[in-house]
Amino acid sequence: MLSSRSSKNLLPGLARHKLVVQPYASTRHFSLAKSSGVQKERVVILGSGWAGYAFARTLDPAKYERVVISPRSYFVFTPLLASTSVGTLEFRTIIEPIRRLPGKIGFYQGWADDIDFDRKRIRIEANAAEEAASKTVVPGPFTPQSEQGDTEKAVTAQGKSVKGDLIDIPYDKLVIACGAYSQTFGIEGVREHAHFLRDIGDARRIRLRILSLFEQCSYPQGSDHLSDADKRQLLHFAIVGGGPTGIEFAAELHDLIRDDLAPLYPHLMSLVSITVYDVAPKVLPMFDQALAKYAMDTFSRQNIQVKTEHHLERLRLADGELGRRHGALKIRIREYGDEEVGAGLVVWSTGLMANPLIAELAAKQLASPGPNPPSNASSTTRHLLRDSRTGGIMTDPHLRALTSTAPTEASSEPKRSILEDVYVIGDCAVMENEPSLPKTAQVASQQATHLARRLNAGGAEAVASRAFRFRNWGTLTYLGNWKAIHQSEVDALRGWVAWVVWRGAYLTKSMSVRNKILVPIYWMISWLFGRGISRF
Amino acid sequence: MLSSRSSKNLLPGLARHKLVVQPYASTRHFSLAKSSGVQKERVVILGSGWAGYAFARTLDPAKYERVVISPRSYFVFTPLLASTSVGTLEFRTIIEPIRRLPGKIGFYQGWADDIDFDRKRIRIEANAAEEAASKTVVPGPFTPQSEQGDTEKAVTAQGKSVKGDLIDIPYDKLVIACGAYSQTFGIEGVREHAHFLRDIGDARRIRLRILSLFEQCSYPQGSDHLSDADKRQLLHFAIVGGGPTGIEFAAELHDLIRDDLAPLYPHLMSLVSITVYDVAPKVLPMFDQALAKYAMDTFSRQNIQVKTEHHLERLRLADGELGRRHGALKIRIREYGDEEVGAGLVVWSTGLMANPLIAELAAKQLASPGPNPPSNASSTTRHLLRDSRTGGIMTDPHLRALTSTAPTEASSEPKRSILEDVYVIGDCAVMENEPSLPKTAQVASQQATHLARRLNAGGAEAVASRAFRFRNWGTLTYLGNWKAIHQSEVDALRGWVAWVVWRGAYLTKSMSVRNKILVPIYWMISWLFGRGISRF
Repeated sequence: MLSSRSSKNLLPGLARHKLVVQPYASTRHFSLAKSSGVQKERVVILGSGWAGYAFARTLDPAKYERVVISPRSYFVFTPLLASTSVGTLEFRTIIEPIRRLPGKIGFYQGWADDIDFDRKRIRIEANAAEEAASKTVVPGPFTPQSEQGDTEKAVTAQGKSVKGDLIDIPYDKLVIACGAYSQTFGIEGVREHAHFLRDIGDARRIRLRILSLFEQCSYPQGSDHLSDADKRQLLHFAIVGGGPTGIEFAAELHDLIRDDLAPLYPHLMSLVSITVYDVAPKVLPMFDQALAKYAMDTFSRQNIQVKTEHHLERLRLADGELGRRHGALKIRIREYGDEEVGAGLVVWSTGLMANPLIAELAAKQLASPGPNPPSNASSTTRHLLRDSRTGGIMTDPHLRALTSTAPTEASSEPKRSILEDVYVIGDCAVMENEPSLPKTAQVASQQATHLARRLNAGGAEAVASRAFRFRNWGTLTYLGNWKAIHQSEVDALRGWVAWVVWRGAYLTKSMSVRNKILVPIYWMISWLFGRGISRF
Repeated sequence: MLSSRSSKNLLPGLARHKLVVQPYASTRHFSLAKSSGVQKERVVILGSGWAGYAFARTLDPAKYERVVISPRSYFVFTPLLASTSVGTLEFRTIIEPIRRLPGKIGFYQGWADDIDFDRKRIRIEANAAEEAASKTVVPGPFTPQSEQGDTEKAVTAQGKSVKGDLIDIPYDKLVIACGAYSQTFGIEGVREHAHFLRDIGDARRIRLRILSLFEQCSYPQGSDHLSDADKRQLLHFAIVGGGPTGIEFAAELHDLIRDDLAPLYPHLMSLVSITVYDVAPKVLPMFDQALAKYAMDTFSRQNIQVKTEHHLERLRLADGELGRRHGALKIRIREYGDEEVGAGLVVWSTGLMANPLIAELAAKQLASPGPNPPSNASSTTRHLLRDSRTGGIMTDPHLRALTSTAPTEASSEPKRSILEDVYVIGDCAVMENEPSLPKTAQVASQQATHLARRLNAGGAEAVASRAFRFRNWGTLTYLGNWKAIHQSEVDALRGWVAWVVWRGAYLTKSMSVRNKILVPIYWMISWLFGRGISRF
């Protein structure tokens, strides 16, 4: 029986690969075992962010068997994350499912638990049973499982966290692209009470929270449930970190409030405030003085407060009903002494720290390199080489993982060598020749594309034949009101031109056709009819 | 300063009412107090479903002050709920925010806790602090707050449920449109383990669960974490209730699996099954024999099992890791004795029961009617009149609430009378002249439109001057594969014509321009590129 949907084959350029199975039982089995005629090398990719996704997208499935392992089953187009957190865009328009990448691709949802570099196997802890594994996880002092975000964890009837199944996956080549974690500097209460903005689930929770706060403050003024002073606290939106992410979120939030919430809650508008806190003397340090001043002037006109040289020391739930029932927070700031600042939402965006997996991997002893291990092998110790400053894995200029062999009697210097078939890209990599490359999407995606193209061109030898070079496309930051600033080695743009040119360029480069269609449609819909304001 | 978005006024027909406030502090205060020149009657509407929303949409804001009270801030276009649960449509395309209704409208998010009919005041328990209050709530044996769905409730740090603020709202006229609850017949485990499909949050949870089940079963076959027998249980989708909702969900699920999941998980297809259980001898009882047979033939070709005369007796979590870690369920069916059926998802759609609020309201003693209460008022008791069969509130043919006054010495018959200024529409109403009207969207919306138009035409007198009459537009049920059946007094359509004509008609009638644009776009996008398959 022919599916009525088979007519989509009239659009071969757009139609994705489709298998019509009727009813479902198929004799064609997709197997990850090397069953096809030619035996391909299996490249396992750890991570599905800018590095992992760009690599998987670029690596030729005709030449390699691709297997992605990641705790989330999709890539998030992070430059538009702030837009989804305020409802300008729908969440799904900025994510790309790994399984929908063109060509055959394997995917296992889970956390890398351990890697046996000698036997070339990865142990993963499956997390597919967690119904929504889309929240930024910050390792806690005790265990990352016991977090506030228990709602998002698989929990037994007894309320205990479930550990996922452990599964071993072998690889021929390994690409480590597991990224970095959010940096909280160990500040009390941040892990429990602040919102991060790195995954789609974070954006969803922020959106729910903002809209809920306005709704909570909208009950009649006469009633005694919340005073104006309480509402002023709840409608204070605090952003910690004055980098592009924090600044963009503040700008998008301002647009949401001015365009969509002011008409619906006009009586609350005098109680609303937005503040950006940063420890540094200026925000947006990557921009030159003129652009940063333009940004600050724009914010000042929008009534967004920017407080530089402010040190957040603690975050806690407010006392009484205001905290318990309404989730109001109290922020302790060093410069203000004992006088805490109230807020309904704190968005935390202060930077990155090393993924704890890296430290675990670096602690493992590796077999000595070379076909003939020296006779005194047992007396030498070899480890992955970590960057002492950031905690990332050191790579050579070809993105190959480096190891260090401890001094033996024969040689008094620690010896660096390549760890065969293991590559590191993105936020968890530190290149020995360019150790200061920033942890940004463009570095990650350029490294990924470079490495995949070299492997496509001729495997390990092709990788060795050309070093990675970073090309700086500059930095874009949205300032609200359809205005942005862009800075690179060749330009310093500002206004709406910067926004259209650079956001458009990124979008065209990284997204699927589906989302290239949907994103402009949503921009148009939000512009005409307002943003999405419903909570669910 | 002019907003760059003010250019949208070039499209006056499409642009929504917009207030540009810069920065936010506004001197224009939206007040629910009767401050405008003419004093309007305040009509409070309890509920935002088909009845409440259609009423609020039709009532003229120039003549009445409209205030909607509902635990959710939007209307859900339920005929497309099953489509969103499988990702054909995006959730937000089938909801309409109450606050975006044209014209001035008041909204308070909360549960009606109590109504003082004599003093004309409603006490609401605010639930705006619950970040996602979009789940079907089923009253439990103890308290509706202590449900499995604790993740969706405001919970204190100590894990206790928070009761929302209590707020009193006065009304001049009251429209009770608070709907009905899902009927579980008190069957053990249904409330805890089954999924309902009545709100957008239900659809979201079902979507997450389906996709999670496939992901959980997709790890390599060689590993020992799940046997094929386990996977067969997890990939069994059980639907309880063979009415249009259950049948449509089964059909949409089949489409999702065939079109989108089969290409991604071909090795799982032989393990997938869908079963619809019903206690009655046939499903879709509202359709004639020929259409019902067409539906069953279509299902049979799609390999969807339909088991009539099957009585579900208990639902529980499976033993061991399969239940604890993977959430597998065991269904006990009377006809099968002790042999339980395994399932990964149970969708429950067996009908409706009275909203518990109705019983509480009917228990309240009301003041006697008329300007001069009789001298023996203290000896009479007057209550809201309930339908003994369904538990709904009885109304007269004009949708006015009826009361019953207990017999006194003077008269031996209980006396029926109208409760002034209180109207009842939708699933919670039972009309004394047509007590068997079904609890459907079309009855609710026709009652709502009728009542609002009468009030617009001339208040209480206009309501009294014309009785409500139901016009049956027939019933549509989607069968998968772009086919549907439609039955009414004048037609009996089947195939894709039925689908296009009737779904299109409903859509055009009930949705905003925004969603009239977005729904066809998503149909096109899903058809070309597949459904949304990411979980977050």
